[in-house]
Amino acid sequence: MEATISSNQNSQIKQIQNLLKSSKRRQEEGLFVAEGKRLCFDLLENNSEYVKKMYFSSSKADELVPLMPNAALYEVVKDDIFEKVSETDNSQGVLALVKMPEYSVANLFDDQNAKDLKKSTVLLLDGLTDPGNAGTIMRTALATGVKFVAFTGNSVDVYNPKVVRATMGAIFRLPFVYFKDTKEAIDALKEAGYKIASTHLSGDKMFNEIKYPIKCAVVIGNEAHGISDVSKEAADYLVKIPMEPGTESLNAAVAASLMMYKLYLG
Amino acid sequence: MEATISSNQNSQIKQIQNLLKSSKRRQEEGLFVAEGKRLCFDLLENNSEYVKKMYFSSSKADELVPLMPNAALYEVVKDDIFEKVSETDNSQGVLALVKMPEYSVANLFDDQNAKDLKKSTVLLLDGLTDPGNAGTIMRTALATGVKFVAFTGNSVDVYNPKVVRATMGAIFRLPFVYFKDTKEAIDALKEAGYKIASTHLSGDKMFNEIKYPIKCAVVIGNEAHGISDVSKEAADYLVKIPMEPGTESLNAAVAASLMMYKLYLG
Repeated sequence: MEATISSNQNSQIKQIQNLLKSSKRRQEEGLFVAEGKRLCFDLLENNSEYVKKMYFSSSKADELVPLMPNAALYEVVKDDIFEKVSETDNSQGVLALVKMPEYSVANLFDDQNAKDLKKSTVLLLDGLTDPGNAGTIMRTALATGVKFVAFTGNSVDVYNPKVVRATMGAIFRLPFVYFKDTKEAIDALKEAGYKIASTHLSGDKMFNEIKYPIKCAVVIGNEAHGISDVSKEAADYLVKIPMEPGTESLNAAVAASLMMYKLYLG
Repeated sequence: MEATISSNQNSQIKQIQNLLKSSKRRQEEGLFVAEGKRLCFDLLENNSEYVKKMYFSSSKADELVPLMPNAALYEVVKDDIFEKVSETDNSQGVLALVKMPEYSVANLFDDQNAKDLKKSTVLLLDGLTDPGNAGTIMRTALATGVKFVAFTGNSVDVYNPKVVRATMGAIFRLPFVYFKDTKEAIDALKEAGYKIASTHLSGDKMFNEIKYPIKCAVVIGNEAHGISDVSKEAADYLVKIPMEPGTESLNAAVAASLMMYKLYLG
């Protein structure tokens, strides 16, 4: 299909490059970039109101454009230009410019006093920095019915292209909020009636031997340094995950997933 | 510290570059490369017989060389040359040339008839291709006392530098073997008395509702396509991991870790 964008000086291409690179630019514009056939088309199907525009590489456009709903906007980008904005090794020739969803803390907490509340698990990522881990954790959070994910300000940007990719779409279906720091997050969670379950190597209880309350916030820390002192001190449950003698740690996404499944399955 | 290697034409530097790039070269030479302070020094402390030589960047050598045991061989590499063989963004200025451990299938199965065998969990990675997932899985396998990890021939190379890094040292403490294909692996495991527990979206039992046998092999499939038909048909237990309606899949390392912890904790 003939390209509508064939210069790398094109302003849309420059915008995409900036959004891929800079967390600040993403926040300023309220936009981010999603790449991949399944991710982008799932998004069009389920959350089309967030999709500002789709971009196809010229060699893939003949196959992909016919799959688009009529009203959706798109551009066809010359292959060698598309490659400059693709972050994957084997590009599927499709990316989307997407509006950020807006979640407010108040709304996320609004069923806190519901009388029929059965389970309300929240995940607090306390300084987690690896994009792949954040994405993996959000997939598990969605699969286990986590209510929302809270990030501390020093955690990875969820709109980082690597996180967007690793979530496999969970980013559009699972609410999340950023708190300035751990204290602000913990205070808000406690105020809303959540108990805090923090994972730590010095935990005094095994994670699998506890009956967790209906409203429970699981805290997962930084990959190298674990949870912050604030999360440790605020913990109603300071738990550890059993390991064979001589082994020291698990990947953070594994630890988070074990906790989420424990709360999910009881 | 003054560099003993200051040319990128140096034969050792070329060897390291080849070992980083090529799985074939690693197999031919029986060598691979490990990078990072903790990984390399753990290795020197616990498995020094595998370390052929250590390499330090010249700006880090003053700090690192004094930490070396007397007998260990090392070279100091000019910073800009070291950078060419470093695969990390913020290099710690240390890498090691390491001999591959040799495990034989026969030895790994040799306690199969022990009368006091309490638990013997094996993990079969059936076409798993993501290096980060393989590393994460090996960390969990070590933490849960898995006996060894079996890879099918179409799985990722465990000596890929990204796997080596993600294992955080587990690669030196957890035996692993490669089988030509899934059938050869399954046949060997069944012959040695293992039951096969395969995870699959079409599983007829929930993974957490089964009492697994003492000798059990857990099969984890490819990230995109799941387990092979051979693993599915050979399964004594075809299990699935519960998920909320509308969600489809978990990261492969998360699924593997949930299974390993179920078998570990009962």
